Amino acid sequence: MMFKCSKNRMEDKIKTFAQYGATGNGGITRYALSPEANQARGEFVKRMEAIGAIIETDDLANMYATLEGTEPGLKRIVMGSHVDSVKNGGNYDGILGVMTGMEVLETIAENNIPHRHPITVMIWTNEEGSLYPPALMVSGVVCNDVLPADIAGKYKMEDMLKSKSVLDKTKTFKDALDASPYKGEKKNRLNPDDYMAMFELHVEQGPILEDAKNDIGVVTCVLGMFNYRIRFFGQADHAGTTPMHKRQDALYAAAKGLCYLHEEIDKLGRPELVYTTGEIVCHPCVHTVIPDMIDFSIDVRHEDPEVRQKVLDIVKSLDGKEIERCRCEVELAWARDTVYFDEELVGFVKDSADELGISNQYINSGAGHDAQFASYMMPTTMIFVPSKDGHSHCEPEYTSVEQCTAGASVMLNAVLKTDKK
Amino acid sequence: MMFKCSKNRMEDKIKTFAQYGATGNGGITRYALSPEANQARGEFVKRMEAIGAIIETDDLANMYATLEGTEPGLKRIVMGSHVDSVKNGGNYDGILGVMTGMEVLETIAENNIPHRHPITVMIWTNEEGSLYPPALMVSGVVCNDVLPADIAGKYKMEDMLKSKSVLDKTKTFKDALDASPYKGEKKNRLNPDDYMAMFELHVEQGPILEDAKNDIGVVTCVLGMFNYRIRFFGQADHAGTTPMHKRQDALYAAAKGLCYLHEEIDKLGRPELVYTTGEIVCHPCVHTVIPDMIDFSIDVRHEDPEVRQKVLDIVKSLDGKEIERCRCEVELAWARDTVYFDEELVGFVKDSADELGISNQYINSGAGHDAQFASYMMPTTMIFVPSKDGHSHCEPEYTSVEQCTAGASVMLNAVLKTDKK
Repeated sequence: MMFKCSKNRMEDKIKTFAQYGATGNGGITRYALSPEANQARGEFVKRMEAIGAIIETDDLANMYATLEGTEPGLKRIVMGSHVDSVKNGGNYDGILGVMTGMEVLETIAENNIPHRHPITVMIWTNEEGSLYPPALMVSGVVCNDVLPADIAGKYKMEDMLKSKSVLDKTKTFKDALDASPYKGEKKNRLNPDDYMAMFELHVEQGPILEDAKNDIGVVTCVLGMFNYRIRFFGQADHAGTTPMHKRQDALYAAAKGLCYLHEEIDKLGRPELVYTTGEIVCHPCVHTVIPDMIDFSIDVRHEDPEVRQKVLDIVKSLDGKEIERCRCEVELAWARDTVYFDEELVGFVKDSADELGISNQYINSGAGHDAQFASYMMPTTMIFVPSKDGHSHCEPEYTSVEQCTAGASVMLNAVLKTDKK
Repeated sequence: MMFKCSKNRMEDKIKTFAQYGATGNGGITRYALSPEANQARGEFVKRMEAIGAIIETDDLANMYATLEGTEPGLKRIVMGSHVDSVKNGGNYDGILGVMTGMEVLETIAENNIPHRHPITVMIWTNEEGSLYPPALMVSGVVCNDVLPADIAGKYKMEDMLKSKSVLDKTKTFKDALDASPYKGEKKNRLNPDDYMAMFELHVEQGPILEDAKNDIGVVTCVLGMFNYRIRFFGQADHAGTTPMHKRQDALYAAAKGLCYLHEEIDKLGRPELVYTTGEIVCHPCVHTVIPDMIDFSIDVRHEDPEVRQKVLDIVKSLDGKEIERCRCEVELAWARDTVYFDEELVGFVKDSADELGISNQYINSGAGHDAQFASYMMPTTMIFVPSKDGHSHCEPEYTSVEQCTAGASVMLNAVLKTDKK
């Protein structure tokens, strides 16, 4: 038997949560542990207590609302995402995973849907890392013991507590945590002894589902990626007095290097490959001085390690090279392998969408999510819903109420399939 | 009869002034009106009073040291440059023009060289504009009445007084001026009623003299130039979720645009043309976000307005163009015509160098100098000495004592030729 969530209740949640941190331009700014985030958390508590859920919090201010199951002693099934946003973000990234989890519990409560396992909705603290970097901070801490060593090393609890507010360098994440009314006990953290499986519903943040006219993305993996810094070293000289043939112009060299990367990477003929040069730093960055240093980032994502390696070979071919008399150096900043979600859970999501008659497709996640860290701890998977025009991390971010409700219905039935295992 | 300056005295001045604001790495940081600049000014006063020069200051803290001439009522001949430097600058830019002027007066005093006109050495306040922008601030104010309207408008006294310290936004140029022990009366300003001609000796700041093995550059003009901002507008999207063919990557577009400019401008086949893209601004400049705006500067300098126009046509050809689905806009920031120096004074410099047997050539100035503004007020010219490896505005800036002394000797004889007019 298939169950469906309530469009009206879903719409009410979307409208309600959109008020907490509203910018007045259709979006929100709702930093982790901010007063605006506390408003959203308070709304979560109010609605979950109304259906009889038990509320718990852990030492990182993660929150858990649980409906007990019929068989005592079984592990919990958890649905989770985050309520914090980037600056001038939208009303769906993160919060939709919490709202659809709430909707699943509300539908179960309203219809007295039987379930053996306790079912939990979770709020992860500080996924975006917009105020207290890095992103995925708290899932990185909670899952630290089971993460690969190089990733775990970037999310040590003691380092994360020292993370400084980007708006006020005198304030740390620990200060914000200590001041939070939602800080609880460490024993309440997500853990594999008490939890058997995790689902995270999220907006796609890209245009693939919309272009394919599918309402559900059955997520199979989070793409492996690497991040490099590419630097060109020239010579700073006066704009008016240095003949062109003598110049070592690091910006011209970097522009040529950047075009070279595009040409060579595009020759690989991999339309599913994505790579981005999003950050560029110039020194001394004065209009009358030839730049002596340019440093830009390249972020490369693909499921297949062989394809990533081919791109890496192209990036590394610049190392030590001279372009326009400027030496190039490349340096690894960050890399991770593709994280595959649990096959059985992926199957439950696919079957639920098919059985509900909701258009769907397999998709991978180019973005990082807390679920990718949780997947090292327990069977985990994700569900995507479409992002209008592919936009995310901006105020025009939009997913229709129908699509949000469809996502909740798919998650509800996938959770119930998991419950029957 | 030809006169020569003293190498030993010149060397002593170079070593002495290099102490005021010394960075410990061979260079100086000596901002306008700073304690370090006051040390240099004090040294100037001490040495000029020692030869019987009269010291005057004006309301902008410009300083004048004058040796009276033999014929009463004649106008003064002035040699001037500045004692302020850029951050981590060298020991020659600006200060060498003051030291060679002092050396000229010292040689005249020591040898009792007869001269009809009063001869003055001048220190211009705040040429670099490193602490209080813009560059050429005070000559822009002093010469304001005679400058072309579009340039004069950028140097209005009331605006300049409000210029904020780049290190302390609560402090203005007026505050620094009011606190200066060298602030005097407005009537003492350089003016065409009291002064008949101006010379400025400066380091070339480029490699042309060194490459040609010439010790003196007979400067004929300050190159005309224009500055444009070139902007590309894209769409900020997520690095991991946006397919390449949908992207509007403003940085990729800008890199292509920058390479296009180099290719097209180089086709003009003008080796004496210089152009520089020194500043680049990226938005939002996050490694996981596709840039939606890139803004870079282009600074183009050439003596001939027809050549500048050809380059401008290339720059403007980008306006409204689409590259990689990003729209380009170009905007004029600043332009000036070539400023030609006084033909007679240029001839005096050339003849002096030839008669002294000092290797020399005609050269133009790619950089801006206070002399270019003074030239609107009275006959003016400049003398260049070589810059080792063409470096300037940096600590390795260097000109040999022999070349500095040769420059002083050329200026001395050119001043004496002017005096005989």
